[in-house]
Amino acid sequence: MNISNIKFRKILNDLKRRPEDAAKDLKISEKKLLKLLKKNKFDDFNIIKKATKIWPVNYGDFFSFEDDTKKDFKIMRANKSNKSSRVMTRGGNPYYLYKDTVTSKLSPFKPELITELQIVNNNNANNSDVKFNNGHFLHQFTYFIGPVNFYYVLNGKKKIAIMNTGDSMYISPYIPHSFTTRKNIQGELGKILAITYSDKLDNETLNECSSIGFNLVKKYKINLNTEYDSFWSNLIKFLNNSSISINILQKGIRYNLKKIKSQKKVPNTIVIKKIAKYLNLNLRDLLPPNNPVDVRIQKYEDNRKWFYPNDIKKDYKIIELTNVSELPYSKGFEITILKNDKKNSILEVPTHQYIYNIGNEDIKVDIDGVNEKLNRNDSMYIKPNKKHKFLTIGKILVLRLGGRLSGDSLYQISKMSEENLRKTLNDNKPWFDK
Amino acid sequence: MNISNIKFRKILNDLKRRPEDAAKDLKISEKKLLKLLKKNKFDDFNIIKKATKIWPVNYGDFFSFEDDTKKDFKIMRANKSNKSSRVMTRGGNPYYLYKDTVTSKLSPFKPELITELQIVNNNNANNSDVKFNNGHFLHQFTYFIGPVNFYYVLNGKKKIAIMNTGDSMYISPYIPHSFTTRKNIQGELGKILAITYSDKLDNETLNECSSIGFNLVKKYKINLNTEYDSFWSNLIKFLNNSSISINILQKGIRYNLKKIKSQKKVPNTIVIKKIAKYLNLNLRDLLPPNNPVDVRIQKYEDNRKWFYPNDIKKDYKIIELTNVSELPYSKGFEITILKNDKKNSILEVPTHQYIYNIGNEDIKVDIDGVNEKLNRNDSMYIKPNKKHKFLTIGKILVLRLGGRLSGDSLYQISKMSEENLRKTLNDNKPWFDK
Repeated sequence: MNISNIKFRKILNDLKRRPEDAAKDLKISEKKLLKLLKKNKFDDFNIIKKATKIWPVNYGDFFSFEDDTKKDFKIMRANKSNKSSRVMTRGGNPYYLYKDTVTSKLSPFKPELITELQIVNNNNANNSDVKFNNGHFLHQFTYFIGPVNFYYVLNGKKKIAIMNTGDSMYISPYIPHSFTTRKNIQGELGKILAITYSDKLDNETLNECSSIGFNLVKKYKINLNTEYDSFWSNLIKFLNNSSISINILQKGIRYNLKKIKSQKKVPNTIVIKKIAKYLNLNLRDLLPPNNPVDVRIQKYEDNRKWFYPNDIKKDYKIIELTNVSELPYSKGFEITILKNDKKNSILEVPTHQYIYNIGNEDIKVDIDGVNEKLNRNDSMYIKPNKKHKFLTIGKILVLRLGGRLSGDSLYQISKMSEENLRKTLNDNKPWFDK
Repeated sequence: MNISNIKFRKILNDLKRRPEDAAKDLKISEKKLLKLLKKNKFDDFNIIKKATKIWPVNYGDFFSFEDDTKKDFKIMRANKSNKSSRVMTRGGNPYYLYKDTVTSKLSPFKPELITELQIVNNNNANNSDVKFNNGHFLHQFTYFIGPVNFYYVLNGKKKIAIMNTGDSMYISPYIPHSFTTRKNIQGELGKILAITYSDKLDNETLNECSSIGFNLVKKYKINLNTEYDSFWSNLIKFLNNSSISINILQKGIRYNLKKIKSQKKVPNTIVIKKIAKYLNLNLRDLLPPNNPVDVRIQKYEDNRKWFYPNDIKKDYKIIELTNVSELPYSKGFEITILKNDKKNSILEVPTHQYIYNIGNEDIKVDIDGVNEKLNRNDSMYIKPNKKHKFLTIGKILVLRLGGRLSGDSLYQISKMSEENLRKTLNDNKPWFDK
């Protein structure tokens, strides 16, 4: 098991329990408790059961994550992917061939290479051979390889997009969808790299929502449809949270907010800054996202392209795939390594990375001094902020994901000094000296 | 135990494992697996052990939270608080008397009523009778009752603030601090309500940081010191994440960014909007917080005050206590109920609430139709978005906290339709129909 003494100490500190208090609460000897606090990992599940009964803590609080990478990255070889093959049927017929590609206990993504086994004769969204799923909780980014039809349901209507190699799409949670292969002379079966991922709504956030309960959680919802809806519905939450009426706010900032609201307008930035100051918020808190995307489809020829690091030193050709502004740290790219050169530029990105060798060449890669090969159809996970560079010609798909460690949480980490950050990650001391 | 079948199903769905695939992976019969998926809660810890060995999942993924409220609130009576009394010594001498007040498995706060037992003869920050702690990971909001001296260390220097009833303070994580009572003729011992709380850096976020490791996590840090540092250091993260050089960005938006950077300036909002559009971000993503607060002290007489709902219907007098803009959903108030009236206004706030009866009267409260009493020194937790009102004269301390369910995550919840939100919280179906 994996009960971490650092987590256990953190629980005691958060509850302001000295070892002697905790021992008393748990009805064990202080000696036993001190022993647990010294063990790197311990295996006594009864302690957790008891603790969750007497203290305001949850089971998950006692466990740490396991780092399943070696030297901060992890590679899944093509032959291991092949071994995970499983045929998914729909209506009794083979419909998809799934293969796992790399994933980690740390990564927010769960990627599959999926071969479409259903061949269709037409591009009709209502084709009865097309079997839709119910959609899933995770976001999905998809990279297309070959003659794939992508079907989805939007506002109750079935839609189709005719996709080819290099095209990409994003679908938001619970959009029902399906994929098939278009009939072609070569008899080629289309494939997709389907990378499902979580962002801010992680395990604990969902646990909290479930416990608050649907009827209360639904009242959280801010209307994000338009800039107008989003601004006002967000502002009203803040006013409620401060028990300030719009009249008081108006008087405070000397501006007729009600009038501008009735005109179906959003105040200008100067006024929003005044509101932020009055409510002691940052400007960003009053600029919620709006007009969120359910489905985005991007054709290969419409992608933006550039060279990295620049037009003179052309180490990599970057082709930007689809992305949505509501997930600002989630970005997909097709990257072509243009030179066999040990001096190709180093990359370092503040996000979890999923990398798949989609080209015809085996690629040499240097991960902060460690040399590896990323062969055809191999896939790789690299931890955030890890230096790496690609040394030989080839083509890769790259998906960069912020997950829970971006935006608000990134700013809160940034607030901590290095010393306190180190303490936070390794703290196994009481909060005071005796 | 508390292994939730909904969590178990979610794990299978996220991993794209049908029951037959999962049974094979776990080396159990499909029948047994289907049985587990039907049980509301199950108790087979070996399944978790095996699953964490073979799948990219963590122990915590299998557990839900327990809702320890009844009808969405929870009260801790004064006599129960008294029973939790424990004397904390420093240097062998009694220094604090701790009493728990209400907390919940759902609430981000861990509050204590602390009586200061150390009496000091002077207001010298370097008084050797004052024993500092090491600071703690949680944020702290403090409400002062009586003649309390508050000591803290800022930039290596010991400081003092002379506090009285109604004063309040905020300290950020790991600020070393201490409290004593000033000598007074009445022999009164000062007290504080010390409410420590977490915001975005919850258990799983810290687990993720620990697994990524300190050396990589520290590179996440954005320099938030000034508006200038914060803007540019945040923008550079986004550029790295998109492998876009500042030269390409300059060309793309037709604006000389390098020049304005070298002038130690931040571009104006119109230019920032252009950058956001070019990088497919929302404006808010390019407006990080800056100039974060380590310690904020607020004297009672400097607090803003108003009546709620308005100056005509004066049901409640609201006195705003200290708060910081980096935690925009965390707000403290002293609220006086001015009338004995069943028609006092309903309050509904989008945050977890901690409420403590600090006055001399027992208070009648209505929580969405349920009548309760919040007597002197009782404390209460109310879930977010729960309607409530106070029916009789009295005085309460209120702390409202967003915790992990605010900001980014609130917007992501808002994106979901009610139907999909309901599904998310109760989903125990595969992601497709056979």
